Amino acid sequence: MAKNVLIIGAGGVAQVVAHKVAQNAKEFGTLHIASRTVSKAEKIIASIREKGHSVEFTAHPLDAMDSKAVAGLIRQIDAGIVVNVGSAFVNMTVLQGCIETGAAYIDTAIHEDPAKICETPPWYANYEWKRREDCEKAGVTAILGAGFDPGVVNAYARLAEDEYFDKIDSIDIVDINAGSHGRWFATNFDPEINFREFTGTVYSWQGGEWRQNKMFEVGREWDLPVVGKRTAYLSGHDEVHSLSARYKDADVRFWMGFGEHYINVFTVLKNLGLLSEQPVRTAEGLDVVPLKVVKAVLPDPASLAPDYEGKTCIGDLVKGTLDGKPGEVFIYNVADHKDAYNEVGSQGISYTAGVPPVAAAILVARGTWDVKKMANVEDLPARPFLELLGALGLPTRVIDASGDHPL
Amino acid sequence: MAKNVLIIGAGGVAQVVAHKVAQNAKEFGTLHIASRTVSKAEKIIASIREKGHSVEFTAHPLDAMDSKAVAGLIRQIDAGIVVNVGSAFVNMTVLQGCIETGAAYIDTAIHEDPAKICETPPWYANYEWKRREDCEKAGVTAILGAGFDPGVVNAYARLAEDEYFDKIDSIDIVDINAGSHGRWFATNFDPEINFREFTGTVYSWQGGEWRQNKMFEVGREWDLPVVGKRTAYLSGHDEVHSLSARYKDADVRFWMGFGEHYINVFTVLKNLGLLSEQPVRTAEGLDVVPLKVVKAVLPDPASLAPDYEGKTCIGDLVKGTLDGKPGEVFIYNVADHKDAYNEVGSQGISYTAGVPPVAAAILVARGTWDVKKMANVEDLPARPFLELLGALGLPTRVIDASGDHPL
Repeated sequence: MAKNVLIIGAGGVAQVVAHKVAQNAKEFGTLHIASRTVSKAEKIIASIREKGHSVEFTAHPLDAMDSKAVAGLIRQIDAGIVVNVGSAFVNMTVLQGCIETGAAYIDTAIHEDPAKICETPPWYANYEWKRREDCEKAGVTAILGAGFDPGVVNAYARLAEDEYFDKIDSIDIVDINAGSHGRWFATNFDPEINFREFTGTVYSWQGGEWRQNKMFEVGREWDLPVVGKRTAYLSGHDEVHSLSARYKDADVRFWMGFGEHYINVFTVLKNLGLLSEQPVRTAEGLDVVPLKVVKAVLPDPASLAPDYEGKTCIGDLVKGTLDGKPGEVFIYNVADHKDAYNEVGSQGISYTAGVPPVAAAILVARGTWDVKKMANVEDLPARPFLELLGALGLPTRVIDASGDHPL
Repeated sequence: MAKNVLIIGAGGVAQVVAHKVAQNAKEFGTLHIASRTVSKAEKIIASIREKGHSVEFTAHPLDAMDSKAVAGLIRQIDAGIVVNVGSAFVNMTVLQGCIETGAAYIDTAIHEDPAKICETPPWYANYEWKRREDCEKAGVTAILGAGFDPGVVNAYARLAEDEYFDKIDSIDIVDINAGSHGRWFATNFDPEINFREFTGTVYSWQGGEWRQNKMFEVGREWDLPVVGKRTAYLSGHDEVHSLSARYKDADVRFWMGFGEHYINVFTVLKNLGLLSEQPVRTAEGLDVVPLKVVKAVLPDPASLAPDYEGKTCIGDLVKGTLDGKPGEVFIYNVADHKDAYNEVGSQGISYTAGVPPVAAAILVARGTWDVKKMANVEDLPARPFLELLGALGLPTRVIDASGDHPL
């Protein structure tokens, strides 16, 4: 029997997930989307209608911080798959709701405690992995970090393991957004989450141990397909914290591309204390979290989509040996902001993050990935996922000994 | 009979005023200081005691936005002179309290409406000058803008008029702070007032009319005594709005020195909307004025004093003709941050702003400036003021045809 799907969240990524689920409705049973503010979910459903999809889709109000409420809604609509693309603070309560009800769980980013920035590595061990046994006992499929990065880039690493090397020496994930939104400054997703990524310690896995750096301390110029020469900086990112567990002997690094303008604005805000999640008191006696005010003055990331132009290039440079012979492969995707907007009304960053969890949901629905336990993406077969992603709009390309070619 | 003095305000400038009044207690009757937060006024009195001054000084709580309360306190302590160095928002209520009671009024900066930035020029006509007749009728001495700039620089212009030229062609006021506080970023006085100065239109008086520019649009390198070559930018400032009335045929410009770092931080904050005095609503529904949050995260200007090193140079380059022969004179002062801290526990910016109103108060007490009407500093004899300032710690120097020499 086809599984009913529940999407949790109603931001830019949720919009992409909802559109893609609607486009692939034949893979699922009934379709549902839940948000604290139900009108935002309804707006997403309306945008699906505007694209001419007549599929049934139901919006529900939900406080996803309340695991009982999550479980209640799952039971009410008999959801078989929950795609959690809500705020980074709700993972554990939504996962708990799934464990209680037996629904499969899929998310795209690590759980965060609103009061803490950058916890001890590996991050997954602080929250999600503590529920591993519970999932296994309950026979619940829980796929962690199934966005693009983390997510697709984890599958790229697994592809290199499966098809290129018998020993992996290094995995360098590079994320370049060469698009332009035309605003003086904006973040591509929720400023609160965006800045939190870069205010803490940069953890990388090198030489079999965790290395610590500061943000923008280590930069390197990359020369990538389509986007060309770009400087990217060693950054903290979820996938380093799971890939380092599977590939203990490899160096695992994440590189994010930044222009000088972004770095300057970030540096000013950070050094002044305006990115702090700790409240300050104004002269008038009002307690305010500076980061929330910065978020309030910045453009809504969703508003950038109509004017966004240009491409993203995200990929893994994997080095290793096969039969003792060293080699390297670059596995990547190029996405276009304008194409994403024309298809689902979102910019490319949301598109690359929102399509993969739908591919994961389809693979769970088909049984391919319905593993009845907790798994990060690199723990699952990569080829079915990457081939399905190609069909869904995120084709994989490979640069190896035989040149630059489609997967 | 000696006049009792009431200082209103308890910030960095008020601290300098209180110390200087205490040092010159023989010129006055009883000494008083009032602030909304009386403990801040008490702390200033304690700092005077620490310097070994045993003079009597009384602190009072006062809401200076309430003119009846101001008048009540003036009557209660029989104040003959009120030195208003409170926030820029209280001028009109304090002035009203003086008009009602007959006390002399002295301030150091223009009145501002908290909800408005950069009103129509000339700024004095929007508030203070509307009370001219009231002052004259009541026989109340009201000296406007008697800080350094506005204040001393207005007297420099008057000195040039009195002793150098029969026709003045241009007055360029240049304010360079070559000091260093050692912090990543800080403003030298209340960030709210500091940034408000630079977010509006830059008005200058040129060719007999008001010219409008944007901040940092017009920059020019100056080569000044002690501080050397520095870039200063055409800026909006109070004194342009009174000097242009007396010197209608002259160009009147104000130039403020800024380093690239200050300009960068200012530009980021302004372009993001973080210098706005209009509230924004956070995602959590809290209405917050961004500028007040910026103020809350920045260092308290008073906290900069102990580490402040280096010099300020503020002066007027006046060009004109005498008997048809063109000439120019640069009249200026150099102040030292460390010297100011050692003497009164404040940095140089507060020192240069706080000493002049005390000189004005002494001249009112002595009768020299007790003109029984409203006046800007350039309307009053300049030499007694400048000579007294020299004795109080702000000596005037002149660069003219005979070289660089003391006044």
